[in-house]
Amino acid sequence: MSIMEPDLHNLKISDPFLGQYQQLVRDVVIPYQWEALNDRIPEAEPSHAISNFRIAAGQEEGEFYGMVFQDSDVAKWLEAVAWSLCQQPNAELEKTADEVIALVAAAQHEDGYLNTYFTVKAPEERWTNLAECHELYCAGHLIEAGVAYFQGTGKRQLLDVVCKLADHIDTVFGPSEGQLHGYPGHPEIELALMRLYEVTQQPRYLTLVKYFIEARGTQPHFYDIEYEKRHGTSYWNSAGPAWMIKDKAYSQAHQPLAAQQTAIGHAVRFVYLMTGMAHLARLSNDESKRQDCLRLWQNMAQRQLYITGGIGSQSSGEAFSSDYDLPNDTVYAESCASIGLMMFARRMLEMEADSQYADVMERALYNTVLGGMALDGKHFFYVNPLEVHPESLKFNHIYDHVKPVRQRWFGCACCPPNIARLLTSLGHYIYTVRPDALFINLYVGNSAAIPVGEQQLQLRISGNFPWQEQVKIDITSPVPVEHTLALRLPDWCDDPQVMLNGEAVSGSIDKGYFYLKRSWHEGDSLILTLPMPVRRLYGNPLVRQQAGKVALQRGPLVYCLEEADNGKSLHNLTLPVASTFTTIAGTGIFAHKVLIQAEGYRRSMETPEQKPLWHYDSAPVVRQPKRLTFIPWFSWANRGEGEMRIWVDEAR
Amino acid sequence: MSIMEPDLHNLKISDPFLGQYQQLVRDVVIPYQWEALNDRIPEAEPSHAISNFRIAAGQEEGEFYGMVFQDSDVAKWLEAVAWSLCQQPNAELEKTADEVIALVAAAQHEDGYLNTYFTVKAPEERWTNLAECHELYCAGHLIEAGVAYFQGTGKRQLLDVVCKLADHIDTVFGPSEGQLHGYPGHPEIELALMRLYEVTQQPRYLTLVKYFIEARGTQPHFYDIEYEKRHGTSYWNSAGPAWMIKDKAYSQAHQPLAAQQTAIGHAVRFVYLMTGMAHLARLSNDESKRQDCLRLWQNMAQRQLYITGGIGSQSSGEAFSSDYDLPNDTVYAESCASIGLMMFARRMLEMEADSQYADVMERALYNTVLGGMALDGKHFFYVNPLEVHPESLKFNHIYDHVKPVRQRWFGCACCPPNIARLLTSLGHYIYTVRPDALFINLYVGNSAAIPVGEQQLQLRISGNFPWQEQVKIDITSPVPVEHTLALRLPDWCDDPQVMLNGEAVSGSIDKGYFYLKRSWHEGDSLILTLPMPVRRLYGNPLVRQQAGKVALQRGPLVYCLEEADNGKSLHNLTLPVASTFTTIAGTGIFAHKVLIQAEGYRRSMETPEQKPLWHYDSAPVVRQPKRLTFIPWFSWANRGEGEMRIWVDEAR
Repeated sequence: MSIMEPDLHNLKISDPFLGQYQQLVRDVVIPYQWEALNDRIPEAEPSHAISNFRIAAGQEEGEFYGMVFQDSDVAKWLEAVAWSLCQQPNAELEKTADEVIALVAAAQHEDGYLNTYFTVKAPEERWTNLAECHELYCAGHLIEAGVAYFQGTGKRQLLDVVCKLADHIDTVFGPSEGQLHGYPGHPEIELALMRLYEVTQQPRYLTLVKYFIEARGTQPHFYDIEYEKRHGTSYWNSAGPAWMIKDKAYSQAHQPLAAQQTAIGHAVRFVYLMTGMAHLARLSNDESKRQDCLRLWQNMAQRQLYITGGIGSQSSGEAFSSDYDLPNDTVYAESCASIGLMMFARRMLEMEADSQYADVMERALYNTVLGGMALDGKHFFYVNPLEVHPESLKFNHIYDHVKPVRQRWFGCACCPPNIARLLTSLGHYIYTVRPDALFINLYVGNSAAIPVGEQQLQLRISGNFPWQEQVKIDITSPVPVEHTLALRLPDWCDDPQVMLNGEAVSGSIDKGYFYLKRSWHEGDSLILTLPMPVRRLYGNPLVRQQAGKVALQRGPLVYCLEEADNGKSLHNLTLPVASTFTTIAGTGIFAHKVLIQAEGYRRSMETPEQKPLWHYDSAPVVRQPKRLTFIPWFSWANRGEGEMRIWVDEAR
Repeated sequence: MSIMEPDLHNLKISDPFLGQYQQLVRDVVIPYQWEALNDRIPEAEPSHAISNFRIAAGQEEGEFYGMVFQDSDVAKWLEAVAWSLCQQPNAELEKTADEVIALVAAAQHEDGYLNTYFTVKAPEERWTNLAECHELYCAGHLIEAGVAYFQGTGKRQLLDVVCKLADHIDTVFGPSEGQLHGYPGHPEIELALMRLYEVTQQPRYLTLVKYFIEARGTQPHFYDIEYEKRHGTSYWNSAGPAWMIKDKAYSQAHQPLAAQQTAIGHAVRFVYLMTGMAHLARLSNDESKRQDCLRLWQNMAQRQLYITGGIGSQSSGEAFSSDYDLPNDTVYAESCASIGLMMFARRMLEMEADSQYADVMERALYNTVLGGMALDGKHFFYVNPLEVHPESLKFNHIYDHVKPVRQRWFGCACCPPNIARLLTSLGHYIYTVRPDALFINLYVGNSAAIPVGEQQLQLRISGNFPWQEQVKIDITSPVPVEHTLALRLPDWCDDPQVMLNGEAVSGSIDKGYFYLKRSWHEGDSLILTLPMPVRRLYGNPLVRQQAGKVALQRGPLVYCLEEADNGKSLHNLTLPVASTFTTIAGTGIFAHKVLIQAEGYRRSMETPEQKPLWHYDSAPVVRQPKRLTFIPWFSWANRGEGEMRIWVDEAR
């Protein structure tokens, strides 16, 4: 079915909450990351990404520095700029971006090839190590940037560059003799080429995606073939010789996708791959691939998803673990994985109007994605734990990947610019624009003009989501438009109510959407009331890490305890079964946020240091009443280092 | 103070429980391990340890194979044989051991040097890599074997070999010019030389121990000096280049022992080092070293000890973590570490008659040490978790070190022969033979003759510990002996009672020992009653992994739930605060063991697979009554693979 991507020029975010985030990205994050890409942030890990392009373009002398996929940081920054310019023009920023694009173009080879690592460091080794070396991954991010910059500014230079790059790739890879029968170690090119296909309508890009996806995991295995051609040399040996080549499930390449039953391997790779595959399945009407997407979505979302919208239970391989294995403290839950999860959910929603995809998208956005960035826009989490005990992080190596506070930048800096591009392109996730209906997935305040046939449906969503329960949808089209609006009824809301022009209105409900068809007139006003009592959530009993525990959620926001409010040893705090909750308005960094308080208990002992572990006694630890304060989890660790925990022991 | 080590020829174990274990070691373990050392166990990892000696002795062609410390497996086997021969002569076994000793002697160099790895593989590199290469560790085990074989059989050949080896080491190491100012990466030589000193009374051995201990951790650092001499080559690079040299705390060499405040680094190294140091402190009347031992014991036993007598909270470095960080599932708790802990406790007891050391010794023995070996004597644990969820072990790499069932043998096979030598030398731990009193630390059934001045106190301990609460101590000396008996009152027993010849008797109690001085006559009979109700144990509230949970202990035995008795998802079983316990006699592999039953609950849900993780609801998981069966933890995993857990959620 034909789905139209909203033009972000006609979709202005006005949300009091996420609008602030977008502004933060414009005012702080994009300039900050520009400084980072140019190595001008004191005490941050160096990037060298712009220098790499200058060297590759012959404009500077020097050596390549950074990860083999360092180029992608520049591409994601350009993409963030592109979407940001849709929201708010900025001539100076656009000029800087144009210069970067000219630099990127200058680094492109005659034949279309474009990658600074190989250009500078190993020009003879192009396309010899797909399993490990991220050439197609970097190309994918450049293609996404090219599409975005074209959509954001109407300028074609980067689009032309990436078309030339994509065309080059199309000559190198494919089923014909003389072509490489390969596909990337890190998926990304697939979802990017699908976007390029949508913009250019060149079928060869869709065909290439199909090739990459269908070749994946077939035998004889391409990663082994190229490994042999390289005489057994490998780029990554940190987890054993050639581990990335040998552990094919890490890259979802252990078998053809049609045979894969579970979300497995590196979580970001998985969701990027599935995003491209779902897009392909829809645009090529491929029922078999749609079933593959459904099956793998279901395994991930039903059995391997955290309450925070995080995925990837383990640090080793930044990977999924197994069904219902969801450790709170050793979890990986990379920020990028939740961004990729939103992308995958978006493409699933485009295949099927089922609100479960939007529920997951919202859970990921308001929890892990927002949590990945500090409230100051200058510090970032790569890993997003649900429980942290800082004193143990220093000594127990199972926590080596966990940071108790957000970092300025990373040697592997995939997450910060990814958050920036996600937040600036939020408009793509709010609506699904189908011919038969306009689906509203997220209640982010915005004004939009959506084409309906030859007409335009104009509307404005307002309110103060996710803090307040009323969402208002005003129709602002100057002429009446006959159309169906489909409002998502969030899974967390037991009793949603819809009013039209002040009167209760009933509509049909299907798969979590409330459908209302009519001729919409200027001044029509829908009020959606989504009651947001504090909810006690209980884990699936198959998840052992949640047994006996309870978590709090209000609206889409998961809450947590922090040491700053509740003292040390959060594991000793318990929440009674029958407790009542008070919501209070936050102050300081919590201004405009809702906090939760409840009367609970603290297990205590006067001098636990005097109770030696060689002796145990039978006297239960006593407990005292203790007022507990919960903050929205996405805002944790904004007050320095301290303990944090989402799942709290329940007391009777 | 002069402490006499009991002569194991005069100390015959007759314990119904541990006597069976000793018999298992004699009949099964020692022959099985002999087969293993000779690579004759199908499906087990190869050892090659005997072949290495043959090659080093020039009796066979071939290459060295195995760990750099492979020799120590042979030494520990010889030690186990030596102690076993005290208990029960076995001419055939002794002949085999004599042949091994002749082989070891044949592998010794003219100058006394003895190590098959360096002899075969790197003869020029002797004593060039103390930090990493275990030469002194292997020497220590050979010395222990030489002492044991002399004590066990009266034969001097191996003692002479190891004295020659020790003398060689004494020329190589020391403070003089031309000597190496070094010390081992893996302590062991210290405790071994102390034993050699006790047998030979050669002061140079004690002086050498003092040198090794006092040089440790001083600057400029010996490990760095030898590393530079080697031009930066290193043997172990698995955790990064030269990690074992750089991470000096791993070997307790980051600072002088006098400055160290916490149990740190590789747990086996720590307890081996402390065993030697405590022995040295006592025999050299060194108050400062005694204080060092006390301080480090206290940190370990008060803040880093598991309820099972396990130590070493993490796999990385097989190491301690930090105070009160005691994960149940990712723990290391190596079998060897608990054996070393018993050795350390024994030496502390010899310094100070305080039952806390014996309490720890008993906890380690009856839980982790026994648990390290299967009931069949042919399978072993290296790592001893307190909680296992086998399905997660396969996918989540935080569990890579954990095995759900005991293994036949190991590439690094330190644990199996260590368990064998510990069990055959149990007599050394039962008593502390002081001039002023005979201390009974463990209530293991045995008959012993203990020198008291010119006389002998003969006694017999009987009962059925740890299953039954009465321990009988009969005096069997033909002539009266005036002496003090000091009976340990276990920390787990609230109400111990002592009867002498059928009448209640009072004695003085000091630091956990009950003192009774009198003229002991043949036929005198003490009955010590140690009531063993099932005890509910609560963790220190600083240990977050035990919060809200309870463990069961009866006598010294910690109990656990197993899937075989209680079904899957043990995390959903809860034990009510007010539950009562039934002890029942086990059958089958649990014959002669006491099991525990209690009425608890199982949290359940009819079809949890249908409750997807993308949706949470507020309905608490319901619970049904469920009878829980607890088995002694040391006997877990003797019925195949399944879940296991010690700390159980408490229900109100």
